[in-house]
Amino acid sequence: MAATTKRKDPVIEELRRLLGTRLSTSGAVRDQHGRDESYHTVHAPDAVAFAVSTEEVAEIVKICAHHKKPVIPFGSGTSLEGQVMALHGGICIDTSQMNEILEVNAEDLDCRVQAGVQRLQLNEYLRDTGLFFPIDPGANASIGGMVATRASGTNAVRYGTMRENVLGMTVVLADGRIIRTGGRARKSAAGYDLTRLLVGSEGTLGVITEISLRLYGIPEAISAAVCPFDSLAGAVNTVILTIQSGIPVARIELLDEVQMGAINKYSKMSHPEQPTLFFEFHGSETGVREQAERVGEIAVEYGAKGFDWAIRPEDRSRMWQARYDAYYAAIALRPGAKGWATDVCVPISRLAECILETRRDIDASNLTAPIVGHVGDGNFHITFVIDPDDPEEMMRAEALNERMVMRALAMGGTCTGEHGVGTGKMHFLVAEHGEAVAVMRQIKVALDPDNIMNPGKILRL
Amino acid sequence: MAATTKRKDPVIEELRRLLGTRLSTSGAVRDQHGRDESYHTVHAPDAVAFAVSTEEVAEIVKICAHHKKPVIPFGSGTSLEGQVMALHGGICIDTSQMNEILEVNAEDLDCRVQAGVQRLQLNEYLRDTGLFFPIDPGANASIGGMVATRASGTNAVRYGTMRENVLGMTVVLADGRIIRTGGRARKSAAGYDLTRLLVGSEGTLGVITEISLRLYGIPEAISAAVCPFDSLAGAVNTVILTIQSGIPVARIELLDEVQMGAINKYSKMSHPEQPTLFFEFHGSETGVREQAERVGEIAVEYGAKGFDWAIRPEDRSRMWQARYDAYYAAIALRPGAKGWATDVCVPISRLAECILETRRDIDASNLTAPIVGHVGDGNFHITFVIDPDDPEEMMRAEALNERMVMRALAMGGTCTGEHGVGTGKMHFLVAEHGEAVAVMRQIKVALDPDNIMNPGKILRL
Repeated sequence: MAATTKRKDPVIEELRRLLGTRLSTSGAVRDQHGRDESYHTVHAPDAVAFAVSTEEVAEIVKICAHHKKPVIPFGSGTSLEGQVMALHGGICIDTSQMNEILEVNAEDLDCRVQAGVQRLQLNEYLRDTGLFFPIDPGANASIGGMVATRASGTNAVRYGTMRENVLGMTVVLADGRIIRTGGRARKSAAGYDLTRLLVGSEGTLGVITEISLRLYGIPEAISAAVCPFDSLAGAVNTVILTIQSGIPVARIELLDEVQMGAINKYSKMSHPEQPTLFFEFHGSETGVREQAERVGEIAVEYGAKGFDWAIRPEDRSRMWQARYDAYYAAIALRPGAKGWATDVCVPISRLAECILETRRDIDASNLTAPIVGHVGDGNFHITFVIDPDDPEEMMRAEALNERMVMRALAMGGTCTGEHGVGTGKMHFLVAEHGEAVAVMRQIKVALDPDNIMNPGKILRL
Repeated sequence: MAATTKRKDPVIEELRRLLGTRLSTSGAVRDQHGRDESYHTVHAPDAVAFAVSTEEVAEIVKICAHHKKPVIPFGSGTSLEGQVMALHGGICIDTSQMNEILEVNAEDLDCRVQAGVQRLQLNEYLRDTGLFFPIDPGANASIGGMVATRASGTNAVRYGTMRENVLGMTVVLADGRIIRTGGRARKSAAGYDLTRLLVGSEGTLGVITEISLRLYGIPEAISAAVCPFDSLAGAVNTVILTIQSGIPVARIELLDEVQMGAINKYSKMSHPEQPTLFFEFHGSETGVREQAERVGEIAVEYGAKGFDWAIRPEDRSRMWQARYDAYYAAIALRPGAKGWATDVCVPISRLAECILETRRDIDASNLTAPIVGHVGDGNFHITFVIDPDDPEEMMRAEALNERMVMRALAMGGTCTGEHGVGTGKMHFLVAEHGEAVAVMRQIKVALDPDNIMNPGKILRL
């Protein structure tokens, strides 16, 4: 029956004429595109369209619009709130074949890429120019996906998030129109900031096909260090005073003792299993030295056990690889379990309170849930290592997550620092923004009256 | 006749009941609110409402909405593209009595202010906390006005524009609803970025009544210097290489020889009348020294005649006062003339070409028009010193401005770096953004279907 329906679906027929073998209705391909890296269940699209150009994306969207068929953009599938699930079926537009770096303007510190270009690919390409793109959410996400979820990660404390680093983009709207937003000037007061409206819109307002990005010169000097602490409070208070002192650290990451234990096991390392900060400093030789000294003084005051420095690139890579692997290391703590990465962000003055209360809550809830965080921004995650098929355990995790989000909101924070709303946080969005969510809805309805663009994400209509 | 009409205007009757003497229909007050600092002619509103709270602004807007009467927000009246002109009459909401600094969270480097708080008032208030708000458009603008026009100015090259420095705001929408956008967390992926949509919306989407801002620690060390050059090209190329080298200058301002002559006369100074850069460096003692040395090496290479340093605060103030007075100094070049400050911004690699072509165009057009610029961002202005009653001269200036904007757009730049669109640049907005302007219009119509919010600005409906 399902197969019969599919064969007769006029959208799929039209798309097949347009795309030939670049349209897939195979079960495996559809399943692979119906989930991201989160614990959410698979919701497969009706078909997956592997687009190769902006114009082709526009043609696909026009066909879908004509039949009011949902459109779900897909980059690398590394989102964490179910952003790519085809909740109402529809056509997944996979941008992975749109992976061309279109221009690098070294003298203006910018570039233009297709949406499917991945983060590591871009930095590999840039290496010889002396430039780099700093935004680093950990996963090797596509640039289009990073724009769509307003990604950030470890370097954001110094370089900002995707919000600050997208200069403009090309977008296909719900009716198939192609627009270009922003421009290459470093600032502009020319009209409404559509670029920033689309950054973080999670595919609900359009399909992003090309992006202009800010780039940065690779710093003259880089040094990194791992620093264990007596207590979680000592580590977090070091972060707070570092930020309040205006020291321009490039990265400052917290991993609690549970996470450090997981990393030692997974990455075969021998870090002390204590609350630990990972630092990176960027600047001139003297600037980096000065920053490191100032942070060192603060850390000692809060019970640091000494810095383990990584200066050579290969040592830094090894050190940061352990941080990147934190999520997989956490999941490996319990064979067969799944990971659920939560995500809140609070004003820095409330960070210690928020993390310590959350740690107590985890201990009281009898859950395996290490804490990691981009703490320089006030952003942290707990990774539930859970069995999604155990409803009682899931309920305990959900209740804890809700308490954590409400705690963050009560402190003037946000329900998501960087993972986005997806399907998982729509009710928290209302708790956070109240009547402003109605305005988001008005904008959504104005630009996508038939609700075909990634329906069921961010907003309930 | 006009007086009779006014007496019977039901909107004014209702507003008078609400506001008492805080509603003014006097000709002088209305005229004063019908113009900004630009050359545009006066368009007086029907009345001026001096609001004292967000709730009162909401009441005023509701009354206007009921009668489909235009609403024009007014801060300090220092806009430069006619943003406050009541083109279709209506009620001007003056926020100058909403001038309370509501909270300063020193430990989080943020604050919340009412929209009428002025820039200098805020920094005066902050002085004892060791913090400052860096955005500095020159004029003592209101924070609300600076948000509405996406202001920037001299410090933007280091600290960003209002786009990067507004954390959230309270806004009264066209139907009188009050919403709060953003929050105090340093980053968030929670839904559409309404904050950034409203920054730069020039009163066309709502009346901004409260703003949360990022603050910064006053740098440990500050030094400033004036540096004349042999040639305009040498000065601009020094800027380009400084930015490309990633030197984090806090300010880097260009004034051409015509502007320097005007400043000497107006401010009774004796600078060499040559193309000149004004620099400011912020950082630690060693950081500032390092930056200054690196810039010094670049400048000498491009024909700098030596730095005149200003280290003591009073010397820096005197030096920067001359820069602030540039606009008034230019106007004083020709008694009885008016000023018209143009505004474009280009990618830094094109800056020399754009400025030099524009300088040649000014010389060929026989107009008095000094060049000043926040050149670190690629942003510069020419100030026409003109007689707006001379249509032939105005035509020459308009033609030159159009050529300058088109030149900037052809170079990948923008028609306005910081002054906004207002009434003066609506046609250039279309030239710059094409179909994206239709999307801006869809958003405007969705949020203000009767077009009562500052009609005739940014978009033609």
